[in-house]
Amino acid sequence: MTKLKMGMVGGGKDAFIGAVHRMAAFLDSQIDFVAGALSSTPERSKASGIELGLAESRSYGTWEEMLAGELALPEDERIDFVSVVTPNHMHFPVAHAFAEAGFNVISDKPLVHTSEQADQLIAAVEKTGVVFAVTYNYSGYPMVKEARHLVHSGYFGKVRKVIVEYNQGWLAGEVANKQADWRTDPAKSGVAGAVGDIGSHAEQLVSYVTGLELDSLCADLTAFVPGRQLDDDGNLLLRFEGGARGVLVASQISAGEENGLSLRVYGEKGGLEWHQERPTELLVKMTGEPEQVRRPNNPYLSDAAKNASRIPPGHPEAFLEAFANVYRGAAAAMRARKEGATLPDDALDFPTVYDGARGVHFIEKTVASSQSLEKWTETRWRRP
Amino acid sequence: MTKLKMGMVGGGKDAFIGAVHRMAAFLDSQIDFVAGALSSTPERSKASGIELGLAESRSYGTWEEMLAGELALPEDERIDFVSVVTPNHMHFPVAHAFAEAGFNVISDKPLVHTSEQADQLIAAVEKTGVVFAVTYNYSGYPMVKEARHLVHSGYFGKVRKVIVEYNQGWLAGEVANKQADWRTDPAKSGVAGAVGDIGSHAEQLVSYVTGLELDSLCADLTAFVPGRQLDDDGNLLLRFEGGARGVLVASQISAGEENGLSLRVYGEKGGLEWHQERPTELLVKMTGEPEQVRRPNNPYLSDAAKNASRIPPGHPEAFLEAFANVYRGAAAAMRARKEGATLPDDALDFPTVYDGARGVHFIEKTVASSQSLEKWTETRWRRP
Amino acid sequence: MTKLKMGMVGGGKDAFIGAVHRMAAFLDSQIDFVAGALSSTPERSKASGIELGLAESRSYGTWEEMLAGELALPEDERIDFVSVVTPNHMHFPVAHAFAEAGFNVISDKPLVHTSEQADQLIAAVEKTGVVFAVTYNYSGYPMVKEARHLVHSGYFGKVRKVIVEYNQGWLAGEVANKQADWRTDPAKSGVAGAVGDIGSHAEQLVSYVTGLELDSLCADLTAFVPGRQLDDDGNLLLRFEGGARGVLVASQISAGEENGLSLRVYGEKGGLEWHQERPTELLVKMTGEPEQVRRPNNPYLSDAAKNASRIPPGHPEAFLEAFANVYRGAAAAMRARKEGATLPDDALDFPTVYDGARGVHFIEKTVASSQSLEKWTETRWRRP
Amino acid sequence: MTKLKMGMVGGGKDAFIGAVHRMAAFLDSQIDFVAGALSSTPERSKASGIELGLAESRSYGTWEEMLAGELALPEDERIDFVSVVTPNHMHFPVAHAFAEAGFNVISDKPLVHTSEQADQLIAAVEKTGVVFAVTYNYSGYPMVKEARHLVHSGYFGKVRKVIVEYNQGWLAGEVANKQADWRTDPAKSGVAGAVGDIGSHAEQLVSYVTGLELDSLCADLTAFVPGRQLDDDGNLLLRFEGGARGVLVASQISAGEENGLSLRVYGEKGGLEWHQERPTELLVKMTGEPEQVRRPNNPYLSDAAKNASRIPPGHPEAFLEAFANVYRGAAAAMRARKEGATLPDDALDFPTVYDGARGVHFIEKTVASSQSLEKWTETRWRRP
Repeated sequence: MTKLKMGMVGGGKDAFIGAVHRMAAFLDSQIDFVAGALSSTPERSKASGIELGLAESRSYGTWEEMLAGELALPEDERIDFVSVVTPNHMHFPVAHAFAEAGFNVISDKPLVHTSEQADQLIAAVEKTGVVFAVTYNYSGYPMVKEARHLVHSGYFGKVRKVIVEYNQGWLAGEVANKQADWRTDPAKSGVAGAVGDIGSHAEQLVSYVTGLELDSLCADLTAFVPGRQLDDDGNLLLRFEGGARGVLVASQISAGEENGLSLRVYGEKGGLEWHQERPTELLVKMTGEPEQVRRPNNPYLSDAAKNASRIPPGHPEAFLEAFANVYRGAAAAMRARKEGATLPDDALDFPTVYDGARGVHFIEKTVASSQSLEKWTETRWRRP
Repeated sequence: MTKLKMGMVGGGKDAFIGAVHRMAAFLDSQIDFVAGALSSTPERSKASGIELGLAESRSYGTWEEMLAGELALPEDERIDFVSVVTPNHMHFPVAHAFAEAGFNVISDKPLVHTSEQADQLIAAVEKTGVVFAVTYNYSGYPMVKEARHLVHSGYFGKVRKVIVEYNQGWLAGEVANKQADWRTDPAKSGVAGAVGDIGSHAEQLVSYVTGLELDSLCADLTAFVPGRQLDDDGNLLLRFEGGARGVLVASQISAGEENGLSLRVYGEKGGLEWHQERPTELLVKMTGEPEQVRRPNNPYLSDAAKNASRIPPGHPEAFLEAFANVYRGAAAAMRARKEGATLPDDALDFPTVYDGARGVHFIEKTVASSQSLEKWTETRWRRP
Repeated sequence: MTKLKMGMVGGGKDAFIGAVHRMAAFLDSQIDFVAGALSSTPERSKASGIELGLAESRSYGTWEEMLAGELALPEDERIDFVSVVTPNHMHFPVAHAFAEAGFNVISDKPLVHTSEQADQLIAAVEKTGVVFAVTYNYSGYPMVKEARHLVHSGYFGKVRKVIVEYNQGWLAGEVANKQADWRTDPAKSGVAGAVGDIGSHAEQLVSYVTGLELDSLCADLTAFVPGRQLDDDGNLLLRFEGGARGVLVASQISAGEENGLSLRVYGEKGGLEWHQERPTELLVKMTGEPEQVRRPNNPYLSDAAKNASRIPPGHPEAFLEAFANVYRGAAAAMRARKEGATLPDDALDFPTVYDGARGVHFIEKTVASSQSLEKWTETRWRRP
Repeated sequence: MTKLKMGMVGGGKDAFIGAVHRMAAFLDSQIDFVAGALSSTPERSKASGIELGLAESRSYGTWEEMLAGELALPEDERIDFVSVVTPNHMHFPVAHAFAEAGFNVISDKPLVHTSEQADQLIAAVEKTGVVFAVTYNYSGYPMVKEARHLVHSGYFGKVRKVIVEYNQGWLAGEVANKQADWRTDPAKSGVAGAVGDIGSHAEQLVSYVTGLELDSLCADLTAFVPGRQLDDDGNLLLRFEGGARGVLVASQISAGEENGLSLRVYGEKGGLEWHQERPTELLVKMTGEPEQVRRPNNPYLSDAAKNASRIPPGHPEAFLEAFANVYRGAAAAMRARKEGATLPDDALDFPTVYDGARGVHFIEKTVASSQSLEKWTETRWRRP
């Protein structure tokens, strides 16, 4: 199998998320890292790239130089895709330019700042036919895929209730570091704080597992830490098309919590529960039956869940392996595109530009609801 | 120590909650069961009483006969208190009549149907000086008392966020039994279903542990099961005086859940987590420290928590023992009243008529909010 | 139902285990406490009895007086049974005398000091036909009964492996209190320390759940705390008749542990796991299937398990309720004896004098093995 | 940082453990895979290598060819180290030949078949000065490193008791696959089955965390599955120099278990507990204090633990990341050797040939004990 060639924008040496993307990309030995514009200044960009082993000629100073430079190469030497791992405000210009130029894109989340930008991205993707993945990485966990399978196969009956939470505590005080700075700056983070940064993961997790579409929501966003310009805590009531109800909590001031993403889904016949910090355990609770604990790579699982594991039962895989599953899924699609092949739908198991756009819509509506005195803010989203 | 004499209204032989009250009352060998009007018909009442070992003369046909009969006895032979364990609609007439007549009362929850009734009860209690306890039994757990102690002592700093849930699944389908019938009948249960039956426990748990007063709430109540007249699922956003925010979930259609009451409280410096189904574990999570698991009857606990245990660490006590702690607290107050003694405030560790009244107010406001298109329904309650 | 009349020897007001026996005895309102010789001196005995509500005439100074006094009463006023809750060295004389006199007995464990005493007790019981229960209370837990049911019904196939542990830490240092004093004194505790006090519970738990008979064992006992005369830590290899293997650990110097009794059993097709400190969860792990968590009072359980619960699923019952199940089982047998009725075998679900005798044999063999240089000490026990 | 060049012997495309080694090796982008002799036949070896992206010239047919081929290359093009991931019987010849030739080695465990082989390997390593790592991967977990730090720093006082278990169920029945075949064949696996394959991990985990040296042991090994030539279940009593006692369980017939490696250590003042299947939770239980749950990458951890994490708290890392930590540690040592630098002792945090030799000694003594009628088999091991 020929390896795919990856370029990266953002993700210089001190950036947490850039390193995560690289570890995820390399895990399956399918991807080579060949080009980058990794920092916000040309000097640091070039230095970072060289330090990370890029050739000097492809360790670019800016993403614009990288785009031009790659287009100037013979087609079979160019990068196959660009990973966009900048702060949020740069997602749109970078992703849009590369997609327009015909490069596949893997972008971090939230996709962009506004629905208008999201629509422009979708237009670019549909025009050029590029593969566009968004790293809603939590849907890469095997047990999340099993959850999705169980819900979609009707195991629980019709879904009535969803409780999704993402509780962190790292912004409970005033925090001064690179990670915190841009996330609490509206110019770089967008209109939302916690709801954008982690609430968007929660929204996508619900969408991925249940397939339910939001009908309306009622949000209460708060900035608890004095001087903070964006919400650091959000509580939402959810109403889904078809009648299901739900609660979404996203907080970065839940002091003492680390990375507490969890999901519960209840249907007519039973429910499920999953916690990201114990990712190998999917609790399945059916009325009148013993509770089940489902674990990765066991024979009783769905194919989608089994395929998301690399090693035997009891050998836990975790965050990076789940993240790598997004890359692996996108890579399969890129390879198919390259070869002119068509993949079956169930092989395309990764979040796309449409999921990203839905997420942006969710963030906008949540902020609008929080500022409204009316109880319900209509939140339906339709693929443009 | 002379035993206190208990009468009971409701709680005939098939009634789950009557048996619970009796086991709780007897656990500490401080209470004798001497009189009762246990069922809704005189025949079954008398039969139940005799079967449960009451003297024929004090196995009454109706609560009115019991009140008259006990008053006709010499003062030192009369019951010391009545336990009211009927369906909800009978709480008010029975509790009010006995309180007016000078008998101490232990009533099940929710206290009564309306705030007007609650105010009348308070007036009666204040007039006669009787002890009036409400069996919000979950506040009887040692680890809940430890949680309260930690929050009140400022261990977590100012409270910012509360998440309380009470998830059951037993009404996920159509259920036809005695327990389900009256709970889903507005005439017997009151204006609310799940929110009244279990949401009231959740509200009281928050109040007990945090001392926070609700400022306003936003409720979304649903009756999922076709034909059901009262809510079987409720999701609420909470705002507390002083700025804390919260979420309250109360559901009886969370299929697969048994009795999932849980509480999380987050302050500026850390948070706590407690689950009723694993009642001996209080999780305490302080920023920058290892998570703590606190367990009953250990030397590091507060006195309030230690006093709520009967046996050594590692010998788990559970639901009945917590329930018995409400009885034990109320019994201490009754004994003090009898002897004309004054108990220190911290010895009066049981829910009172005021807690019951606050709960009724909460239920009314929740139902009102659910029917309103406005986001926030003001919910402040003040002791009349 | 007429209540049974209980007398008690030992268990004065400061004795932990006496209070436990009384709470357990009273929980189901089937037993009245009418006579006692509660302490080791006549003065304290009488005072304790009166303080606990006994009539002065039946608050005896010594157990011999109590035996004589009760025999002097008309037959229908006498106690129905005696609970023996003294330090170990008094179990034999008291239990033997009462059994010889025709009284039913409930004795704490370990039954007696020597196999000779055990055989004498069995002879007395078989001669007089009294009911004789031993409070191996952990077999009273509903989930232990479910475990037994699953193993006995062949759910796991033939049993191959057992791991039973009882880890406490309260004797990790030098301890000076009443509980510790007699347990570390050979004159009062017998030839073994931790192995007798808690190892005997572990042995009985295995026997109860699996029905396996020990063939031989290999023990390593240690007294870690300087000056301690009896073992405070024991590790054993077990071989069962029929080929199963096992490990038994009993320790009171596992610092930081509270009351960590746990059992794992593996058969050809799957296994089970149970922890006393989370008593409502029975883990069942079948090859190729999701792990099951079985919980009390659910419809999928065996009758034996369901009958051991008093309140609905999700309302946890714990140590005292399990202890009370031993009393309830013994009470049913006593009532049947009184009425000349014969109970079906499966109604006699409580540990008997034979279980107690097997436990004494186990303790003796463990101590012998620990002193031997040979690997295996034969441990077969046969009902005399 | 220049990447190190890895060669591999064994680990062709269907081999589970070869793929694990490669993912672990690549995770930190420090290692390139450049040469291999991956299967037991030349044809499959070459095909596997090419499929995995090796150049044809370095996709060797046999390990002897690979050794010769690499030596024939200019020194700066040769592999820096060889990973030996064959079935056990090939560890010795391959590792010995490469070490003798001056190549660094990373070998899977158990190291070799006999103590004589182990001593020869040690001699080779000491003669040539190569870096020699053994992939006892479980000591790569951050929480295991924290456990080691706590024990070594005296946090628990003197260690008294160790319980280590490795429970799997995958050989509970007759299994016919590549993994099972060689593990149950004495010619390929050595004198032991479960005790060699996984008991050796358990032994090393104890040694790594506690630093205790075994004094003697008493083993009971069983082959439960009919026809199996090697033990599939082992239970051991352990005595350590200095007086600590312990239990070691290693089983591959614990039906229903996946990969249940766990460790408990008790000192005078408290204890710890760790389970590989929930690797991010280290339980620390100190007498008289709340139980602690320590989690990766938090500020309260030791440097050794913190350095073993790659991503923030709450973002779980697991098996592969722990495995990669062995590679990362060995790689640092290889780099230092290359540069003639001396690493501080605490930077050399990976298992070495001495740990491997101790493991072989342990396996031999365990088998000897199991065949002996004497209780204790002396087990002291001294670095030759």
